Amino acid sequence: MISKQQIKTIHSLRLKKYRDQSGLFVGEGPKVVAELLQSFECTYIAALQSWLEANQTFIPAGVRCDTLQPEELAKTSMLEAPQQVIAIFRKQPDALPTTDALQSELCLALDTVQDPGNLGTILRLARWFGINHVICSPTTADIYSPKVVQATMGALGKVKVAYTPLPQYLASLSNEIPVYGTFLDGTNIYDAPLTSRGIIVMGNEGNGISQETASHITQRLYIPPYPMGSPAIESLNVGVATAITCAEFRRRIMPIPNS
Amino acid sequence: MISKQQIKTIHSLRLKKYRDQSGLFVGEGPKVVAELLQSFECTYIAALQSWLEANQTFIPAGVRCDTLQPEELAKTSMLEAPQQVIAIFRKQPDALPTTDALQSELCLALDTVQDPGNLGTILRLARWFGINHVICSPTTADIYSPKVVQATMGALGKVKVAYTPLPQYLASLSNEIPVYGTFLDGTNIYDAPLTSRGIIVMGNEGNGISQETASHITQRLYIPPYPMGSPAIESLNVGVATAITCAEFRRRIMPIPNS
Repeated sequence: MISKQQIKTIHSLRLKKYRDQSGLFVGEGPKVVAELLQSFECTYIAALQSWLEANQTFIPAGVRCDTLQPEELAKTSMLEAPQQVIAIFRKQPDALPTTDALQSELCLALDTVQDPGNLGTILRLARWFGINHVICSPTTADIYSPKVVQATMGALGKVKVAYTPLPQYLASLSNEIPVYGTFLDGTNIYDAPLTSRGIIVMGNEGNGISQETASHITQRLYIPPYPMGSPAIESLNVGVATAITCAEFRRRIMPIPNS
Repeated sequence: MISKQQIKTIHSLRLKKYRDQSGLFVGEGPKVVAELLQSFECTYIAALQSWLEANQTFIPAGVRCDTLQPEELAKTSMLEAPQQVIAIFRKQPDALPTTDALQSELCLALDTVQDPGNLGTILRLARWFGINHVICSPTTADIYSPKVVQATMGALGKVKVAYTPLPQYLASLSNEIPVYGTFLDGTNIYDAPLTSRGIIVMGNEGNGISQETASHITQRLYIPPYPMGSPAIESLNVGVATAITCAEFRRRIMPIPNS
Protein backbone atom coordinates (compact mmCIF):
# COMPACT_ATOMS: atom_id res chain seq x y z
CA MET A 1 0.00 0.00 0.00
CA ILE A 2 1.32 3.44 -0.97
CA SER A 3 0.26 6.80 0.52
CA LYS A 4 -1.24 9.58 -1.57
CA GLN A 5 1.64 11.78 -0.44
CA GLN A 6 4.19 9.30 -1.79
CA ILE A 7 2.41 9.10 -5.17
CA LYS A 8 2.46 12.91 -5.26
CA THR A 9 6.19 12.94 -4.52
CA ILE A 10 6.90 10.46 -7.33
CA HIS A 11 4.80 12.42 -9.81
CA SER A 12 6.46 15.70 -8.80
CA LEU A 13 9.81 14.24 -9.88
CA ARG A 14 8.61 14.41 -13.46
CA LEU A 15 9.58 18.09 -13.22
CA LYS A 16 13.22 19.22 -13.26
CA LYS A 17 12.42 21.88 -10.65
CA TYR A 18 11.51 19.24 -8.05
CA ARG A 19 14.37 16.93 -9.05
CA ASP A 20 16.77 19.83 -8.54
CA GLN A 21 15.22 20.83 -5.20
CA SER A 22 15.23 17.32 -3.78
CA GLY A 23 18.27 15.87 -5.55
CA LEU A 24 16.14 12.82 -6.38
CA PHE A 25 14.89 11.08 -9.51
CA VAL A 26 12.69 8.11 -10.47
CA GLY A 27 13.47 4.89 -12.34
CA GLU A 28 10.92 2.26 -13.32
CA GLY A 29 10.84 -1.35 -14.41
CA PRO A 30 12.93 -4.37 -13.36
CA LYS A 31 15.76 -3.85 -15.85
CA VAL A 32 16.24 -0.11 -15.26
CA VAL A 33 15.87 -0.35 -11.47
CA ALA A 34 18.33 -3.29 -11.28
CA GLU A 35 20.93 -1.26 -13.20
CA LEU A 36 20.33 1.94 -11.21
CA LEU A 37 20.68 0.06 -7.90
CA GLN A 38 24.28 -0.68 -8.91
CA SER A 39 25.23 2.99 -9.30
CA PHE A 40 22.87 5.19 -7.29
CA GLU A 41 21.76 5.44 -3.68
CA CYS A 42 18.16 4.25 -3.54
CA THR A 43 15.82 6.04 -1.12
CA TYR A 44 12.48 4.36 -1.79
CA ILE A 45 10.97 1.39 -3.62
CA ALA A 46 7.33 0.68 -4.49
CA ALA A 47 6.75 -2.67 -6.19
CA LEU A 48 4.46 -5.60 -6.69
CA GLN A 49 4.78 -8.30 -4.03
CA SER A 50 6.28 -10.66 -6.63
CA TRP A 51 9.10 -8.23 -7.50
CA LEU A 52 9.90 -7.57 -3.84
CA GLU A 53 10.10 -11.30 -3.10
CA ALA A 54 12.27 -12.08 -6.11
CA ASN A 55 14.66 -9.17 -5.46
CA GLN A 56 14.99 -9.17 -1.68
CA THR A 57 18.75 -9.69 -1.80
CA PHE A 58 19.25 -6.66 -4.09
CA ILE A 59 17.34 -4.17 -1.94
CA PRO A 60 19.82 -2.18 0.15
CA ALA A 61 19.29 -2.35 3.92
CA GLY A 62 17.12 0.41 5.37
CA VAL A 63 15.38 1.40 2.15
CA ARG A 64 11.68 1.99 2.70
CA CYS A 65 9.61 -0.39 0.53
CA ASP A 66 5.88 -0.29 -0.19
CA THR A 67 4.04 -3.26 -1.65
CA LEU A 68 1.75 -2.23 -4.48
CA GLN A 69 -1.44 -3.73 -5.82
CA PRO A 70 -1.50 -3.71 -9.66
CA GLU A 71 -4.03 -0.83 -9.66
CA GLU A 72 -1.78 1.20 -7.33
CA LEU A 73 1.18 0.53 -9.63
CA ALA A 74 -0.82 1.87 -12.57
CA LYS A 75 -1.75 4.99 -10.59
CA THR A 76 1.81 5.65 -9.42
CA SER A 77 3.73 4.86 -12.63
CA MET A 78 4.73 7.50 -15.17
CA LEU A 79 4.95 4.87 -17.94
CA GLU A 80 2.22 3.93 -20.39
CA ALA A 81 2.86 0.29 -19.54
CA PRO A 82 3.85 0.15 -15.84
CA GLN A 83 6.41 -2.54 -15.04
CA GLN A 84 6.42 -4.11 -11.58
CA VAL A 85 8.64 -1.60 -9.75
CA ILE A 86 9.15 2.13 -9.23
CA ALA A 87 12.12 3.46 -7.26
CA ILE A 88 13.51 6.81 -6.14
CA PHE A 89 17.27 7.41 -6.34
CA ARG A 90 19.65 10.16 -5.33
CA LYS A 91 21.22 12.07 -8.26
CA GLN A 92 24.99 12.09 -8.52
CA PRO A 93 26.93 15.36 -8.51
CA ASP A 94 28.09 16.63 -11.90
CA ALA A 95 31.51 15.30 -12.85
CA LEU A 96 33.64 16.97 -15.50
CA PRO A 97 36.55 14.91 -16.85
CA THR A 98 39.81 15.34 -14.96
CA THR A 99 42.85 16.73 -16.79
CA ASP A 100 44.24 13.20 -16.93
CA ALA A 101 41.03 11.89 -18.51
CA LEU A 102 41.06 14.70 -21.07
CA GLN A 103 44.66 13.87 -22.00
CA SER A 104 43.96 10.21 -22.58
CA GLU A 105 40.28 9.58 -23.31
CA LEU A 106 37.60 10.31 -25.84
CA CYS A 107 34.73 12.40 -24.40
CA LEU A 108 31.40 13.52 -25.85
CA ALA A 109 29.97 17.04 -25.58
CA LEU A 110 26.30 17.76 -26.39
CA ASP A 111 25.27 21.19 -27.60
CA THR A 112 21.51 21.53 -26.93
CA VAL A 113 20.43 17.95 -27.59
CA GLN A 114 16.81 18.49 -26.59
CA ASP A 115 15.00 15.25 -27.28
CA PRO A 116 15.05 12.91 -24.25
CA GLY A 117 15.03 9.86 -26.54
CA ASN A 118 18.11 11.13 -28.39
CA LEU A 119 19.91 11.87 -25.11
CA GLY A 120 19.07 8.36 -23.86
CA THR A 121 20.38 6.84 -27.10
CA ILE A 122 23.61 8.84 -26.82
CA LEU A 123 24.24 7.77 -23.21
CA ARG A 124 23.74 4.12 -24.25
CA LEU A 125 26.17 4.68 -27.12
CA ALA A 126 28.72 6.26 -24.78
CA ARG A 127 28.63 3.18 -22.63
CA TRP A 128 28.87 0.86 -25.64
CA PHE A 129 31.88 2.71 -26.99
CA GLY A 130 33.69 3.00 -23.66
CA ILE A 131 33.25 6.77 -23.41
CA ASN A 132 33.27 7.72 -19.73
CA HIS A 133 32.37 11.41 -19.88
CA VAL A 134 29.52 13.30 -21.51
CA ILE A 135 29.61 17.09 -21.13
CA CYS A 136 26.24 18.76 -21.76
CA SER A 137 25.31 22.37 -22.46
CA PRO A 138 22.80 23.63 -19.87
CA THR A 139 20.27 23.68 -22.75
CA THR A 140 20.57 19.91 -23.24
CA ALA A 141 17.76 17.72 -21.83
CA ASP A 142 18.11 16.61 -18.20
CA ILE A 143 19.59 13.10 -17.87
CA TYR A 144 17.36 12.52 -14.82
CA SER A 145 14.07 13.22 -16.63
CA PRO A 146 11.90 10.08 -16.63
CA LYS A 147 12.05 9.73 -20.42
CA VAL A 148 15.85 9.84 -20.46
CA VAL A 149 16.19 7.48 -17.50
CA GLN A 150 13.98 4.92 -19.26
CA ALA A 151 15.63 5.45 -22.67
CA THR A 152 19.16 4.88 -21.34
CA MET A 153 18.15 1.39 -20.22
CA GLY A 154 20.44 1.69 -17.21
CA ALA A 155 23.47 3.24 -18.93
CA LEU A 156 22.95 6.14 -16.52
CA GLY A 157 25.47 5.96 -13.71
CA LYS A 158 28.00 4.10 -15.88
CA VAL A 159 28.71 7.33 -17.74
CA LYS A 160 29.74 10.53 -15.92
CA VAL A 161 27.77 13.59 -16.94
CA ALA A 162 28.22 17.31 -16.27
CA TYR A 163 26.27 20.38 -17.38
CA THR A 164 28.32 23.45 -18.22
CA PRO A 165 28.30 26.19 -20.89
CA LEU A 166 30.27 24.63 -23.76
CA PRO A 167 31.94 27.70 -25.32
CA GLN A 168 33.55 28.66 -21.99
CA TYR A 169 34.44 25.08 -21.19
CA LEU A 170 36.05 24.41 -24.56
CA ALA A 171 37.91 27.74 -24.37
CA SER A 172 39.39 26.70 -21.03
CA LEU A 173 40.99 23.53 -22.42
CA SER A 174 44.61 23.15 -23.41
CA ASN A 175 45.22 23.68 -27.13
CA GLU A 176 46.59 20.17 -27.36
CA ILE A 177 43.18 18.62 -26.92
CA PRO A 178 41.47 18.07 -30.25
CA VAL A 179 37.83 19.17 -30.39
CA TYR A 180 35.85 17.43 -33.14
CA GLY A 181 32.43 18.29 -34.54
CA THR A 182 30.39 17.24 -37.59
CA PHE A 183 29.42 19.85 -40.17
CA LEU A 184 28.13 19.83 -43.74
CA ASP A 185 31.40 21.42 -44.90
CA GLY A 186 33.82 19.35 -42.80
CA THR A 187 36.47 16.87 -43.90
CA ASN A 188 35.17 13.40 -44.83
CA ILE A 189 35.40 11.51 -41.53
CA TYR A 190 36.83 8.48 -43.38
CA ASP A 191 39.68 10.61 -44.68
CA ALA A 192 40.35 12.69 -41.55
CA PRO A 193 43.00 11.88 -38.96
CA LEU A 194 41.21 10.78 -35.79
CA THR A 195 42.79 10.38 -32.39
CA SER A 196 41.97 8.17 -29.41
CA ARG A 197 41.53 11.21 -27.17
CA GLY A 198 39.72 14.52 -27.42
CA ILE A 199 36.16 15.80 -27.39
CA ILE A 200 33.49 15.03 -29.98
CA VAL A 201 30.78 17.73 -30.03
CA MET A 202 27.30 16.76 -31.27
CA GLY A 203 24.75 19.46 -32.02
CA ASN A 204 21.06 20.30 -31.71
CA GLU A 205 18.40 18.30 -33.59
CA GLY A 206 17.33 21.18 -35.79
CA ASN A 207 20.22 23.63 -35.79
CA GLY A 208 23.35 21.56 -35.32
CA ILE A 209 26.26 23.02 -33.38
CA SER A 210 25.83 26.65 -32.30
CA GLN A 211 28.17 29.25 -33.77
CA GLU A 212 29.63 30.10 -30.39
CA THR A 213 30.53 26.47 -29.71
CA ALA A 214 31.64 25.85 -33.30
CA SER A 215 34.33 28.51 -32.99
CA HIS A 216 36.17 26.24 -30.51
CA ILE A 217 36.10 23.18 -32.75
CA THR A 218 39.51 22.39 -34.16
CA GLN A 219 38.62 19.42 -36.41
CA ARG A 220 35.55 19.81 -38.61
CA LEU A 221 34.28 16.41 -39.79
CA TYR A 222 31.63 15.38 -42.29
CA ILE A 223 29.66 12.13 -42.49
CA PRO A 224 29.22 11.49 -46.22
CA PRO A 225 25.93 10.22 -47.65
CA TYR A 226 26.05 7.53 -50.35
CA PRO A 227 26.70 7.86 -53.17
CA MET A 228 29.13 10.54 -52.12
CA GLY A 229 28.17 13.95 -53.39
CA SER A 230 24.49 13.08 -53.57
CA PRO A 231 22.54 16.02 -52.24
CA ALA A 232 22.42 15.71 -48.47
CA ILE A 233 18.69 16.36 -48.51
CA GLU A 234 18.50 16.40 -44.78
CA SER A 235 20.78 15.83 -41.85
CA LEU A 236 21.06 12.56 -39.98
CA ASN A 237 19.31 12.20 -36.64
CA VAL A 238 21.76 13.18 -33.86
CA GLY A 239 21.67 9.74 -32.21
CA VAL A 240 22.49 8.08 -35.50
CA ALA A 241 25.22 10.63 -36.31
CA THR A 242 26.77 10.04 -32.87
CA ALA A 243 26.72 6.27 -33.51
CA ILE A 244 28.46 6.56 -36.89
CA THR A 245 31.03 9.04 -35.55
CA CYS A 246 31.93 7.06 -32.42
CA ALA A 247 32.08 3.79 -34.37
CA GLU A 248 34.60 5.32 -36.78
CA PHE A 249 36.78 6.74 -33.96
CA ARG A 250 36.81 3.35 -32.27
CA ARG A 251 37.39 1.39 -35.50
CA ARG A 252 40.58 3.35 -36.13
CA ILE A 253 42.21 2.33 -32.90
CA MET A 254 40.80 -1.15 -32.65
CA PRO A 255 43.16 -4.04 -33.36
CA ILE A 256 41.84 -6.05 -36.29
CA PRO A 257 42.18 -9.68 -35.19
CA ASN A 258 42.72 -11.79 -38.32
CA SER A 259 44.08 -9.53 -41.03
CA MET B 1 -14.07 24.63 -42.64
CA ILE B 2 -13.89 20.85 -42.34
CA SER B 3 -16.82 18.42 -41.95
CA LYS B 4 -17.17 16.08 -39.00
CA GLN B 5 -17.17 13.18 -41.43
CA GLN B 6 -13.81 14.27 -42.86
CA ILE B 7 -12.27 14.55 -39.38
CA LYS B 8 -13.59 11.05 -38.68
CA THR B 9 -12.01 9.74 -41.89
CA ILE B 10 -8.64 11.26 -40.98
CA HIS B 11 -8.75 9.83 -37.47
CA SER B 12 -9.75 6.40 -38.77
CA LEU B 13 -6.50 6.29 -40.79
CA ARG B 14 -4.63 5.98 -37.51
CA LEU B 15 -5.61 2.31 -37.72
CA LYS B 16 -3.94 -0.10 -40.15
CA LYS B 17 -7.28 -1.77 -40.81
CA TYR B 18 -8.72 1.40 -42.34
CA ARG B 19 -5.51 2.27 -44.16
CA ASP B 20 -5.58 -1.18 -45.76
CA GLN B 21 -9.28 -0.94 -46.64
CA SER B 22 -9.00 2.51 -48.20
CA GLY B 23 -5.44 2.38 -49.51
CA LEU B 24 -4.91 5.83 -47.95
CA PHE B 25 -2.68 7.34 -45.27
CA VAL B 26 -2.15 10.72 -43.56
CA GLY B 27 0.86 13.03 -43.50
CA GLU B 28 1.10 16.23 -41.44
CA GLY B 29 3.20 19.36 -41.29
CA PRO B 30 4.73 21.52 -44.05
CA LYS B 31 7.98 19.55 -44.39
CA VAL B 32 6.45 16.07 -44.47
CA VAL B 33 3.54 17.08 -46.74
CA ALA B 34 5.88 18.87 -49.18
CA GLU B 35 8.04 15.72 -49.44
CA LEU B 36 5.06 13.36 -49.77
CA LEU B 37 3.52 15.50 -52.52
CA GLN B 38 6.60 14.65 -54.62
CA SER B 39 6.06 10.88 -54.42
CA PHE B 40 2.42 10.11 -53.62
CA GLU B 41 -0.95 10.90 -55.15
CA CYS B 42 -2.67 13.36 -52.81
CA THR B 43 -6.44 13.00 -52.40
CA TYR B 44 -7.22 15.67 -49.80
CA ILE B 45 -5.66 18.65 -48.01
CA ALA B 46 -6.82 20.49 -44.91
CA ALA B 47 -4.68 23.47 -43.95
CA LEU B 48 -4.55 26.92 -42.47
CA GLN B 49 -5.32 29.70 -44.92
CA SER B 50 -1.70 30.87 -44.72
CA TRP B 51 -0.33 27.46 -45.80
CA LEU B 52 -2.81 27.19 -48.68
CA GLU B 53 -1.88 30.63 -49.95
CA ALA B 54 1.87 30.01 -49.71
CA ASN B 55 1.68 26.58 -51.37
CA GLN B 56 -0.90 27.09 -54.11
CA THR B 57 1.54 26.13 -56.85
CA PHE B 58 2.38 22.82 -55.18
CA ILE B 59 -1.21 21.62 -54.76
CA PRO B 60 -2.05 19.24 -57.61
CA ALA B 61 -5.05 20.20 -59.73
CA GLY B 62 -8.36 18.75 -58.62
CA VAL B 63 -7.38 17.97 -55.04
CA ARG B 64 -10.09 18.90 -52.58
CA CYS B 65 -8.82 21.47 -50.08
CA ASP B 66 -10.46 22.63 -46.85
CA THR B 67 -9.36 25.80 -45.08
CA LEU B 68 -8.96 25.24 -41.34
CA GLN B 69 -9.26 27.56 -38.40
CA PRO B 70 -6.49 26.93 -35.82
CA GLU B 71 -8.99 25.24 -33.47
CA GLU B 72 -10.16 22.95 -36.29
CA LEU B 73 -6.54 22.06 -37.05
CA ALA B 74 -6.01 21.08 -33.42
CA LYS B 75 -9.15 18.91 -33.49
CA THR B 76 -8.22 17.20 -36.75
CA SER B 77 -4.50 16.66 -36.19
CA MET B 78 -3.03 13.45 -34.77
CA LEU B 79 0.10 15.29 -33.58
CA GLU B 80 0.67 16.75 -30.13
CA ALA B 81 1.77 19.98 -31.80
CA PRO B 82 -0.33 20.38 -34.98
CA GLN B 83 1.54 22.01 -37.86
CA GLN B 84 -0.41 24.02 -40.42
CA VAL B 85 -1.39 21.20 -42.80
CA ILE B 86 -2.87 17.70 -42.86
CA ALA B 87 -3.10 15.71 -46.09
CA ILE B 88 -4.36 12.33 -47.26
CA PHE B 89 -2.30 10.35 -49.76
CA ARG B 90 -2.70 7.10 -51.68
CA LYS B 91 -0.37 4.31 -50.55
CA GLN B 92 1.95 2.81 -53.14
CA PRO B 93 1.85 -0.88 -53.98
CA ASP B 94 4.51 -3.05 -52.36
CA ALA B 95 7.65 -3.29 -54.49
CA LEU B 96 10.18 -6.07 -53.99
CA PRO B 97 13.59 -5.51 -55.58
CA THR B 98 13.92 -6.81 -59.14
CA THR B 99 16.46 -9.55 -59.92
CA ASP B 100 18.67 -6.88 -61.46
CA ALA B 101 18.50 -4.74 -58.31
CA LEU B 102 19.34 -7.76 -56.14
CA GLN B 103 22.38 -8.52 -58.31
CA SER B 104 23.78 -5.02 -58.06
CA GLU B 105 22.44 -3.18 -55.00
CA LEU B 106 22.51 -3.30 -51.25
CA CYS B 107 19.04 -3.85 -49.73
CA LEU B 108 17.78 -3.88 -46.14
CA ALA B 109 15.45 -6.50 -44.65
CA LEU B 110 13.68 -5.91 -41.31
CA ASP B 111 12.69 -8.87 -39.16
CA THR B 112 9.94 -7.65 -36.80
CA VAL B 113 11.14 -4.08 -36.19
CA GLN B 114 8.13 -3.05 -34.12
CA ASP B 115 8.82 0.46 -32.90
CA PRO B 116 7.52 3.10 -35.36
CA GLY B 117 10.33 5.49 -34.35
CA ASN B 118 12.96 2.86 -35.18
CA LEU B 119 11.30 2.08 -38.51
CA GLY B 120 11.24 5.79 -39.34
CA THR B 121 14.91 6.14 -38.44
CA ILE B 122 15.81 3.15 -40.62
CA LEU B 123 13.91 4.51 -43.65
CA ARG B 124 15.76 7.85 -43.25
CA LEU B 125 19.04 5.93 -43.04
CA ALA B 126 18.18 3.92 -46.15
CA ARG B 127 17.71 7.15 -48.05
CA TRP B 128 20.93 8.65 -46.66
CA PHE B 129 22.94 5.59 -47.65
CA GLY B 130 21.41 5.22 -51.11
CA ILE B 131 19.57 2.00 -50.29
CA ASN B 132 16.53 1.76 -52.57
CA HIS B 133 14.75 -1.28 -51.16
CA VAL B 134 13.62 -2.21 -47.67
CA ILE B 135 11.97 -5.64 -47.31
CA CYS B 136 9.88 -6.00 -44.13
CA SER B 137 8.52 -9.05 -42.37
CA PRO B 138 4.72 -8.81 -42.01
CA THR B 139 5.38 -8.41 -38.26
CA THR B 140 7.32 -5.17 -38.82
CA ALA B 141 5.50 -1.88 -38.07
CA ASP B 142 3.46 -0.37 -40.92
CA ILE B 143 5.35 2.30 -42.86
CA TYR B 144 2.08 4.19 -43.32
CA SER B 145 1.26 4.48 -39.61
CA PRO B 146 1.18 8.17 -38.58
CA LYS B 147 4.18 7.79 -36.25
CA VAL B 148 6.34 6.26 -38.98
CA VAL B 149 5.24 8.78 -41.60
CA GLN B 150 6.22 11.64 -39.27
CA ALA B 151 9.47 9.96 -38.14
CA THR B 152 10.71 9.37 -41.70
CA MET B 153 10.62 13.13 -42.32
CA GLY B 154 9.62 12.51 -45.93
CA ALA B 155 12.02 9.64 -46.73
CA LEU B 156 8.88 7.64 -47.43
CA GLY B 157 8.30 7.33 -51.14
CA LYS B 158 12.03 7.70 -51.89
CA VAL B 159 12.62 4.16 -50.60
CA LYS B 160 10.68 1.18 -51.99
CA VAL B 161 9.17 -1.03 -49.34
CA ALA B 162 7.54 -4.48 -49.47
CA TYR B 163 6.10 -6.72 -46.76
CA THR B 164 6.73 -10.44 -47.16
CA PRO B 165 7.65 -13.39 -44.91
CA LEU B 166 11.44 -13.19 -44.75
CA PRO B 167 12.36 -16.89 -44.39
CA GLN B 168 10.50 -17.81 -47.58
CA TYR B 169 11.77 -14.73 -49.39
CA LEU B 170 15.40 -15.32 -48.48
CA ALA B 171 15.08 -19.03 -49.35
CA SER B 172 13.86 -18.07 -52.83
CA LEU B 173 16.97 -16.01 -53.64
CA SER B 174 19.91 -17.18 -55.73
CA ASN B 175 22.76 -18.55 -53.61
CA GLU B 176 25.03 -15.91 -55.09
CA ILE B 177 23.34 -13.13 -53.16
CA PRO B 178 25.03 -12.58 -49.80
CA VAL B 179 22.65 -12.23 -46.86
CA TYR B 180 24.17 -10.36 -43.89
CA GLY B 181 22.93 -10.13 -40.33
CA THR B 182 24.39 -8.93 -37.01
CA PHE B 183 24.75 -11.41 -34.15
CA LEU B 184 26.65 -11.52 -30.87
CA ASP B 185 28.74 -14.41 -32.22
CA GLY B 186 29.35 -13.06 -35.73
CA THR B 187 32.61 -11.99 -37.39
CA ASN B 188 33.83 -8.51 -36.41
CA ILE B 189 32.27 -6.29 -39.09
CA TYR B 190 35.58 -4.40 -39.46
CA ASP B 191 37.35 -7.66 -40.31
CA ALA B 192 34.65 -9.22 -42.49
CA PRO B 193 34.58 -9.04 -46.28
CA LEU B 194 31.65 -6.79 -47.25
CA THR B 195 30.21 -6.43 -50.73
CA SER B 196 28.38 -3.61 -52.48
CA ARG B 197 25.37 -5.83 -53.09
CA GLY B 198 23.29 -8.20 -51.01
CA ILE B 199 20.76 -8.03 -48.22
CA ILE B 200 21.41 -6.77 -44.69
CA VAL B 201 18.91 -8.21 -42.20
CA MET B 202 18.19 -6.23 -39.01
CA GLY B 203 16.27 -7.86 -36.17
CA ASN B 204 13.64 -7.18 -33.53
CA GLU B 205 14.24 -4.68 -30.70
CA GLY B 206 14.17 -7.30 -27.96
CA ASN B 207 14.89 -10.60 -29.64
CA GLY B 208 17.09 -9.81 -32.60
CA ILE B 209 16.80 -11.90 -35.76
CA SER B 210 14.40 -14.87 -35.51
CA GLN B 211 15.85 -18.36 -35.79
CA GLU B 212 13.88 -19.09 -38.93
CA THR B 213 15.25 -16.01 -40.68
CA ALA B 214 18.74 -16.50 -39.24
CA SER B 215 19.04 -19.89 -40.94
CA HIS B 216 19.12 -18.07 -44.30
CA ILE B 217 21.87 -15.66 -43.33
CA THR B 218 25.15 -16.46 -45.05
CA GLN B 219 27.40 -13.81 -43.44
CA ARG B 220 27.11 -13.39 -39.68
CA LEU B 221 28.53 -10.03 -38.57
CA TYR B 222 29.24 -8.53 -35.16
CA ILE B 223 29.49 -4.85 -34.16
CA PRO B 224 32.22 -4.77 -31.49
CA PRO B 225 31.86 -2.62 -28.38
CA TYR B 226 34.89 -0.68 -27.15
CA PRO B 227 37.21 -1.74 -25.70
CA MET B 228 36.81 -4.92 -27.71
CA GLY B 229 35.94 -7.89 -25.57
CA SER B 230 34.28 -5.73 -22.91
CA PRO B 231 31.10 -7.46 -21.86
CA ALA B 232 28.37 -6.49 -24.32
CA ILE B 233 26.04 -5.66 -21.45
CA GLU B 234 23.20 -4.97 -23.75
CA SER B 235 22.54 -4.78 -27.44
CA LEU B 236 22.58 -1.57 -29.45
CA ASN B 237 19.27 0.02 -30.42
CA VAL B 238 18.26 -1.34 -33.87
CA GLY B 239 18.30 2.13 -35.50
CA VAL B 240 21.81 2.76 -34.23
CA ALA B 241 22.99 -0.74 -35.24
CA THR B 242 21.58 -0.18 -38.74
CA ALA B 243 23.44 3.14 -38.95
CA ILE B 244 26.79 1.64 -37.94
CA THR B 245 26.35 -1.35 -40.26
CA CYS B 246 25.29 0.67 -43.33
CA ALA B 247 28.05 3.25 -42.73
CA GLU B 248 30.66 0.48 -42.73
CA PHE B 249 29.32 -1.14 -45.92
CA ARG B 250 29.37 2.22 -47.67
CA ARG B 251 32.79 3.21 -46.31
CA ARG B 252 34.34 0.12 -47.88
CA ILE B 253 33.28 1.00 -51.39
CA MET B 254 33.62 4.76 -51.12
CA PRO B 255 36.56 6.37 -52.89
CA ILE B 256 38.73 8.18 -50.34
CA PRO B 257 39.48 11.57 -51.91
CA ASN B 258 42.88 12.69 -50.62
CA SER B 259 44.75 9.63 -49.48
